[in-house]
Amino acid sequence: MRISNALATDLVATAHELADVARVATLQYFRSRDLAADTKETQRFDPVTAADRLSEKRMRSVLARRRPDDAILGEEFGTQSGTTGLTWVLDPIDGTRGYLSGTPTWGVLISVRDAEGPLYGIIDQPYIGERFEGGLGRAQMKGPMGESPLAVRSPRPLSQAILFSTFPEVGTPEEGAAFRRVAPLARLVRYGTDCYAYALIAAGQIDLVIEAGLQAYDVQAPIAVIEAAGGIVTDWQGRPAYDGGQILAAASRQVHDEAMALLNG
Amino acid sequence: MRISNALATDLVATAHELADVARVATLQYFRSRDLAADTKETQRFDPVTAADRLSEKRMRSVLARRRPDDAILGEEFGTQSGTTGLTWVLDPIDGTRGYLSGTPTWGVLISVRDAEGPLYGIIDQPYIGERFEGGLGRAQMKGPMGESPLAVRSPRPLSQAILFSTFPEVGTPEEGAAFRRVAPLARLVRYGTDCYAYALIAAGQIDLVIEAGLQAYDVQAPIAVIEAAGGIVTDWQGRPAYDGGQILAAASRQVHDEAMALLNG
Repeated sequence: MRISNALATDLVATAHELADVARVATLQYFRSRDLAADTKETQRFDPVTAADRLSEKRMRSVLARRRPDDAILGEEFGTQSGTTGLTWVLDPIDGTRGYLSGTPTWGVLISVRDAEGPLYGIIDQPYIGERFEGGLGRAQMKGPMGESPLAVRSPRPLSQAILFSTFPEVGTPEEGAAFRRVAPLARLVRYGTDCYAYALIAAGQIDLVIEAGLQAYDVQAPIAVIEAAGGIVTDWQGRPAYDGGQILAAASRQVHDEAMALLNG
Repeated sequence: MRISNALATDLVATAHELADVARVATLQYFRSRDLAADTKETQRFDPVTAADRLSEKRMRSVLARRRPDDAILGEEFGTQSGTTGLTWVLDPIDGTRGYLSGTPTWGVLISVRDAEGPLYGIIDQPYIGERFEGGLGRAQMKGPMGESPLAVRSPRPLSQAILFSTFPEVGTPEEGAAFRRVAPLARLVRYGTDCYAYALIAAGQIDLVIEAGLQAYDVQAPIAVIEAAGGIVTDWQGRPAYDGGQILAAASRQVHDEAMALLNG
C-alpha cells in the first residue's frame, strides 16, 4: 500500500514508543534471581516469562491508544484483526532462553507490515540499550557508542564469511545436515545469539544467518532492518520469508546464493 | 602471601585503571569496518587485532608506572619478570572471534596472583559498559542497571542447570565426547559467549561452564570472580585450574561434582 509521509512518521514514532515500553518491561525482570519459567510445550524447553507477557501487554496498550484500527500479531496473545491493512508484528522477547540465562543477545522485535510484507522494523536490545531500525527510508542504529547508519558488509565469498545460527542443531536432522554442508566452508561460525545475529548483518559485522523453524514474529523485524541496510533475507529456496520457517539472511547476493546452493545440495 | 589493606587497595585501584584504559583501546576498533585480522596459527582461525595489541600495550604502560616491580603475563607480549611475588595476568581481548563478529560477549580479563593463585580479578565488557570483579574482599558488578553484589545461584542438580560453552566441539574429539556426556542432561545448553559465561555464573544467572584448551590468561580472572561470588572452578579432575587447560566452573559443589563424574565417566 501507499504510505504517506505523515503515516510513515506516525508508524516510526509508534514503533519507538513500543520499543520504549518493552524495554522497561523486559528489564524489570531481567537477571532477577530464580525467574519462574512456564513451559508452553512440554517436549521442548520453551520458557515464557512474566517479562514476556508484561512486555507484549504494554505494547498492545500503546497500540490501542495510538493505532487502534491496525491489526496485531503477537507471540504471547495471538492475533487481533484491524481495518487499515496494516499489521503490527510483535515478539516481546526473542530469545527467551538467552534472557533466562542473563545473556545480552535477546531482543524485542517490532515490525509493521502490509499485504506485501514488512514495511519497517526494530530490533531492540534493552540491556545494552541498543536499537536497530530499518524501513520507511530509515536504516540506522543507536547504542552505547552513539548513532550510526546501518549498512551491510562488502560482498565476499563464503570462504571469507562469518556465519551465525542460534543452535548448532539448526532444526530437524535434515535441516541440520543441510546447515552442515555450509558451515565448514565459512571462515567462522558462531552460535547462541538469537535475533542479535540479524542486527549484526545489518550493522556490517557478519555475513550470514541460517536458521530453521522460525515464526513470523521472529523474522519480520529482522527482514525490514536487514533489507534497509542492503542485505537479503529469503527462505532456503530463495522465496520471501515473511512467515518464518527456514531463514537465510545474508549481507550480499553473492554469499546468499553460495549458501543457498549448498543448503539444497 | 600476606596482603596488607594498603596493598589490596592499590591492587584494586590499579586493576580498575587497567580496565579503564583497555576499555578505551578495545572500543577504538570495535565494529570498525573490515577489521584486519592477523592469524597466529594458520591451522585454527585465531585473529589477533590491532585492538588486542593496543589494549595490552596501554595496560603495560599503566603497570610500568604504578606497579613497576610486579611481574606480567600477557597474551600478546608474553612474560615480564618481577620482584614482588605478584604477577598481573592480562588478556586484552578474550574472545577475539566474538570481537571480530561484533558480538558483545568478549571481554578484557585482568587479574593479579601470587604463588598460590589469583588474588583478585576483573571481567570487563567494554561495549556494554559492564564490569565484574572479585577477590580481596570484593564481589560486585557494575553495569547498565547500576551496581550489585555478585553471588552464585542456589545449588541445583544438573537436570535443572544451565550449561554454557564457547564452542559446541569443546576441544579435542575426546574432550568433545566427554562434554556430550554432560550436555544432554542439563536443562539448557548455550554456546558462543567466551568469558562472559564465567561472569554469568558469578552473577547468579547460570550454573556451569565447561571448556577445554584454555590458557592461564583465559581463566585466572574468571576464577577470582567466580570464587569471590561463592562458586567453584577446577580442571576436569577437580584440581586447581590456574594454568588453564580443561575448565569446569560451577555455581555449586553439587552441580560441579555431578558434571565432573560424567566428564570422567
